[in-house]
Amino acid sequence: MKRLSEIRKMNASELGDLAGEIREMIIDAVSKNGGHLASSLGVVELTLALHYVFNTPTDRLIWDVGHQSYAHKIITGRAAEFASLRKLGGLSGFPKISESPFDTYNTGHSSTSLSLALGEAVGRDLRHEKYKIIPIIGDGSMTAGMAFEALNQIGHLKKDIIIILNDNEHSISKNVGALSEYLIRMITAPLYNRLRRRSYAIIRKIPRYGRRLYDFIYKQEARVKGFFVPGSFFEELGIRYFGPVDGHNLPLLIEVLKGVKDIDNGPKMVHVITRKGKGYGPAEKDPAVFHGVGPFDRKTGKTAKRDSLAYSEIVGRTLAEIARRDRRVVAVTAAMKMGTGLYEFEKQAPGRFFDVGIAEQHAVTFASALAAKGFKPFVSIYSTFLQRAVDQIIHDVAISAQPVRLLIDRAGIVGEDGETHHGLSDIGIIRNIPNFIYLTPSNGTELRDMLYFAAEHGTGPVAIRFPRGSDRSGCVDFSAHERFEAGRSKRLSTGRDVALIAAGDMVSVALETAALLKESGFSATVLNLLSLKPLDMRRIEKAVAETRLFVSLENGYVSGGVGEHILFRLNRELRSRMLFAAGFPDRFVEQGSMLELFHLYGLDPHSIARKILRALKVRNIDEKRHSVRRVSG
Amino acid sequence: MKRLSEIRKMNASELGDLAGEIREMIIDAVSKNGGHLASSLGVVELTLALHYVFNTPTDRLIWDVGHQSYAHKIITGRAAEFASLRKLGGLSGFPKISESPFDTYNTGHSSTSLSLALGEAVGRDLRHEKYKIIPIIGDGSMTAGMAFEALNQIGHLKKDIIIILNDNEHSISKNVGALSEYLIRMITAPLYNRLRRRSYAIIRKIPRYGRRLYDFIYKQEARVKGFFVPGSFFEELGIRYFGPVDGHNLPLLIEVLKGVKDIDNGPKMVHVITRKGKGYGPAEKDPAVFHGVGPFDRKTGKTAKRDSLAYSEIVGRTLAEIARRDRRVVAVTAAMKMGTGLYEFEKQAPGRFFDVGIAEQHAVTFASALAAKGFKPFVSIYSTFLQRAVDQIIHDVAISAQPVRLLIDRAGIVGEDGETHHGLSDIGIIRNIPNFIYLTPSNGTELRDMLYFAAEHGTGPVAIRFPRGSDRSGCVDFSAHERFEAGRSKRLSTGRDVALIAAGDMVSVALETAALLKESGFSATVLNLLSLKPLDMRRIEKAVAETRLFVSLENGYVSGGVGEHILFRLNRELRSRMLFAAGFPDRFVEQGSMLELFHLYGLDPHSIARKILRALKVRNIDEKRHSVRRVSG
Repeated sequence: MKRLSEIRKMNASELGDLAGEIREMIIDAVSKNGGHLASSLGVVELTLALHYVFNTPTDRLIWDVGHQSYAHKIITGRAAEFASLRKLGGLSGFPKISESPFDTYNTGHSSTSLSLALGEAVGRDLRHEKYKIIPIIGDGSMTAGMAFEALNQIGHLKKDIIIILNDNEHSISKNVGALSEYLIRMITAPLYNRLRRRSYAIIRKIPRYGRRLYDFIYKQEARVKGFFVPGSFFEELGIRYFGPVDGHNLPLLIEVLKGVKDIDNGPKMVHVITRKGKGYGPAEKDPAVFHGVGPFDRKTGKTAKRDSLAYSEIVGRTLAEIARRDRRVVAVTAAMKMGTGLYEFEKQAPGRFFDVGIAEQHAVTFASALAAKGFKPFVSIYSTFLQRAVDQIIHDVAISAQPVRLLIDRAGIVGEDGETHHGLSDIGIIRNIPNFIYLTPSNGTELRDMLYFAAEHGTGPVAIRFPRGSDRSGCVDFSAHERFEAGRSKRLSTGRDVALIAAGDMVSVALETAALLKESGFSATVLNLLSLKPLDMRRIEKAVAETRLFVSLENGYVSGGVGEHILFRLNRELRSRMLFAAGFPDRFVEQGSMLELFHLYGLDPHSIARKILRALKVRNIDEKRHSVRRVSG
Repeated sequence: MKRLSEIRKMNASELGDLAGEIREMIIDAVSKNGGHLASSLGVVELTLALHYVFNTPTDRLIWDVGHQSYAHKIITGRAAEFASLRKLGGLSGFPKISESPFDTYNTGHSSTSLSLALGEAVGRDLRHEKYKIIPIIGDGSMTAGMAFEALNQIGHLKKDIIIILNDNEHSISKNVGALSEYLIRMITAPLYNRLRRRSYAIIRKIPRYGRRLYDFIYKQEARVKGFFVPGSFFEELGIRYFGPVDGHNLPLLIEVLKGVKDIDNGPKMVHVITRKGKGYGPAEKDPAVFHGVGPFDRKTGKTAKRDSLAYSEIVGRTLAEIARRDRRVVAVTAAMKMGTGLYEFEKQAPGRFFDVGIAEQHAVTFASALAAKGFKPFVSIYSTFLQRAVDQIIHDVAISAQPVRLLIDRAGIVGEDGETHHGLSDIGIIRNIPNFIYLTPSNGTELRDMLYFAAEHGTGPVAIRFPRGSDRSGCVDFSAHERFEAGRSKRLSTGRDVALIAAGDMVSVALETAALLKESGFSATVLNLLSLKPLDMRRIEKAVAETRLFVSLENGYVSGGVGEHILFRLNRELRSRMLFAAGFPDRFVEQGSMLELFHLYGLDPHSIARKILRALKVRNIDEKRHSVRRVSG
C-alpha cells in the first residue's frame, strides 16, 4: 500500500485503481475474520477523497460509529496488519486512539460524532488553533436523538465544522423515519433544484417586472432557503447545506470537498450519496446481511452455516408464534430488525411491528405508552445499546410499573467487536430498578418459556437477558412450551463440597466445572438461577448451607453483579462460604473470540475448577485444625 | 371551583375570571409549599382552552415534564386538596395516574410526551378507537434528543396527534440552541407571513404572466412550504404547523384549537407563545428563580433566606475560583445553570461556560472531546437526569478514560418532587463503570477539596456526588483548601461495639447515631468513606475487625449500593459482622420533605441506633452462650 503522502499526489485514474485495491483487501479480510463489510465498502471513495483533500491527521476525521473505517485504516499505515482485523491482539474493527494518530476518538456506538466534533471545535477555537474538523455520519445515525442535540448546539455556536452526511439509506436495516424520507425526497426528486432553476427562468423572463421580482426574491434567499435549495431542515438549524453529491464519483467528491474546505466560517454539511456494499455483488444485493457478517465464501457470498439456532432466531420465531394467537402483542426494535430476529415477527404481524430507527430512548417510552394502552410490547435491544435508555426504563416503565417486556440481546461479552460492544453492564443496572422481573435462560427452551411467561405477565415490566450466539444444546421444540415461574431456580445436580450458582450461559460452564471436580473426587451442587430478580433465596440458601463453599457465575461484571447481591442477601453465617464470584473484572474487556475471552478471564471450566480445588484442599486442612484465620490489616 | 362540565359552558369573560381565580390558588399554594410556579402560571389560559375544546379525559392531554400541570389539577376535581401540593401523602407536583383519570401518564423528566403520544396513537388506531391525543411540550423540552426521535417517527407514521408547542423561551434557565433561535425568528420577525402575502400580491399583479405564475407556485406550495409558511422545520418532518398563537388570548386559543381539532388526519403542531410566571410580577420578572422555588412571601416575592450554604453554591463559587487560576477549566450544564450554581462560573469565565440545553447525552460526549483536547471539563447534572447519559458516560468517557469531571448534584432523595426526581440510582450505576474515581463529601469543605482534586486529576474520569440542600455545618472556608487523596477514608471516632461506615450526607447521621449508642453505654467507630471508588478497604477492614458489628449508611438504594459492595470485598470471616445496610429499599420512594422521608425509611439516627442496640444485646447473649445459630431453609 502506498503512503498517504504518495496517495495525495495521485491522479484520478490512479486513485480509482487504488479504490479497487482497497476493496479487495477489505473483502479478503472480512471474508476470513467477519466484520462490517457493507458500510466499509460504501465509503472507499469518500475515504480517499477526505484524506486527499484534508491534511490528516492535523485535520481531524471523526468517523461516527466507526465500523466503516476499514479503508481509513488501510491507507493510514495499517495495511500490513489488516489481516488481524478484529482478532485478539489485532486491529480493532473501530477507530482506536491507541492504534494511530489518524484515529481521533474511540467509538463503536452511533451518533456521537457531532458532539465530539463540537467539543473539539470549541477546544480548537479556545486555543486559537487552525485545522479542520470533519465528522462523517450516516443517515441512520442522524435519527438518534443525541445527533440532534449536537446539531442544535452546532447551529447555535456556529463553529467551523464540516459534517459529511453519508447517506446510504441504511443504518443496519433499512432506515425509517421522517428525516429519512426527507433525505430520500431530496435525492430522488431533485425538484427543489429543478424548481429553483425553472422559477428563476420564468421570473426573469417576465417583461418589466421580472428583474425587480428576481432581485427581491434573490435577496430573501437566505431567509427562505427551503424554496430554493434542498437541506432547509439543516439550514433552519444554521448549518449550510451542500449536495447531494455522488459518493462514488471521486473527481466530483474531491472538487466539492475542496470547495467546502475553503469556506472558513460556520458549520457546513455535505450530503454524500453512497451505496452500501459497493463493489461486492452479494453485499450490494443484501446490505443488511453484510452489515455485520461472520466469515463467508468470497466467490459465492455464502456465509458459514450456523450449526445451531441463534437465541435471536428463537426470539423471532417464538414471538411471531405468540403474536399469531394474541393480537395485543407488539414488537419494537431500534434499527436491529435482523440482529434481533424480529423480521420473523414482522412477517407474521407487520401492523404490530415497529422499527423506530436508532432511537433507543424513544423505543422504550413509546413501548410504555403501548403497554399503558393494554398492549403487550416486546422491546428488543442489544445489551450495550440499552445503556442509551436507562432513564426511560426507570422513568417511563418502572415507576408506573408498565408491563414492557425488554429483550436484552447480546448480553455478556460479544467477542470481536470489543470494548464498546460487550454487554457487561445490564445486570448491575436492571437488577437495581424497582418493580422489574429480570430473567436469564440457560438454553433456548427456557428462553421460549420465559417469552410466554412475559407475554402473560401483565402487572409490571419483565427483562430477559440472553447472550450472543446459539444455544449449544441446539434442540428447541417449537411445538411446546412449559409454564415458567419467576423467582424459581432449578437445581441441576446435588453435591456436598461446592455449590455453583450460575446465571444464563454460565450454567453450561458450571456443569462442565462440576464434571471436572467430580474427576478429582469432589461433588458439586449446580443451581440454574433463571431469575435474577426476584432471587430464589430459599433454594440458594439451601444449596449454600448443604455445601462447604459456593461460587457464583455470570457473564457480566462481578462488580454490581448478581453474585455480589446473593452474598448480601445470605444470612450472616452463610456469607463466609462464598469463595469467589466468577465474572468479568472492573475493566473494559478487549476484542477476541468469545471463547478466547472466557479463557483469558478465567471463566472457562478448567480455570474455575482449578480455583475451587485449591480452596477445597486448603479448606480441608483448615477444618481439621479448627483454626480461625487471622484478620489482615 | 366549578366543575369541568360547567366550565365548558362559560363565556369568554367568565373564563377570564376563572383564570384569575386559578392563578390565585396556585400562587397561594406554592408560596406556602414551594413548587414549580413560573411554568404553571404560564399555561393557565392554555390549560383552560384545552379542557374547553377537547373532551377530556376521553381526549388525552399529555403534559411534558408535568411541572406545569397545576391549573390542570385544579380544574379536574383537585381544587379542594390543592393545599396539600407536594406534601407527604398530598397531591403530587406532577401528573399521576393514581390521582385522576385526567392524568394520563406519570411524568417528571422532560421530553417524553411525544413518544408517549405516538405509542398511545398507535394503540388507539390498532384498536380502532376515536379520540384526540394532545401532548403539550415546551420549547426547552424540544431540545432533548428523545423529542426529536419521537418527531421523526411521528412524521413517518402520520398519526393523528395534536402537538402543542408551549413556547416560553425557557426550559429552566433561558433556552439555548439553534432550534430555539429558529423559533424566536418565527415569532419576532413574522417575515415569512409578510413575505408570503407580499409575494402573492406582487405575482398576481403581473400582467399576463401573473396568474400562470401564481398557479404554478401555489401548486408547489406543499413541497416548498419553507417559502410560504413558517414551521418548515417541522413541515419537513411531515408535521403540519399552525401558529404562532398568543397563549394568553383565550378566545383566540379556543378558536385555533377548535380549527385544528377538526383536521382528522396526520400530525399537527400548534405553536403557542406563553409567558413564564404570567400574572405574578416577581415570577414574570425572574422566571428562572421562580421555576422551582421554596416557600416565599406572596407580597414581596422574597424567598425564605437559607440558613446555610447550598452544595450547589459551593460548587459554583469553587469552580469559578479554580477557573480563574486555570484556563483549561470549562463547565458544562444541561439547562441547569441556576440549580447547579454554575452562574457563578459563567460570570467568571463566560467563554468557557456551556449550557447545551436539555441534552444530557450531548453534554457528556461534548465534554469528553474537550477533555481529549486537554481541557478540564466539569459537567454538572442532577443525579436523576444523569440516567439520560449512562451510555455516553460509559462509551465516550470511561472506555477512553477521558478526564471528564461529573458533578452529580441532588444525589439521594430530593424531597417534595417525589418518585421521578430522587437520585437513588447513581451509586449502583457509576460504581460499576471501570476507570472511574467516585467521591462523595460529607460537608462543604470536603466538597471543595474534592473539586480541587478533580481539577488536578488528569488520567481518568472523576465523579463527585452530593445531596440536595446545604452543608449543615455551614462553615466553609473559601480562602483555603486541602489536598485530597482518592481512596482514603477518614475515621471520625473509635469504638469497640459497632462500626458505622457512612457515605456523604449519611456521615452526620452516623455521628448522631454514635452519640445515641454512647448514651446506652456502647461505643462506635465512625468511618467517613469519602471515596466510593476506589474503596479504602484497609481502613474499612480494620474498623470492622476491631468491632463486633458493622452497618453501612448511604443515601441511595441498598440494592447495588456501596454497602453491598463493601460486604463483597471483605474477607470471609469479617462478612458475618455486617448487621445491615442503611439505605433505601427496592421500591420507588414517594414525595415528602427530606426529613420525613429519612424517618419513614428508618434512616434517622434513632431508628438506626434502635436496630443496632437490639442486635448488640442479642449478640451479647449469643457470645456468652458460644452458640452457633442454625441455618434456615
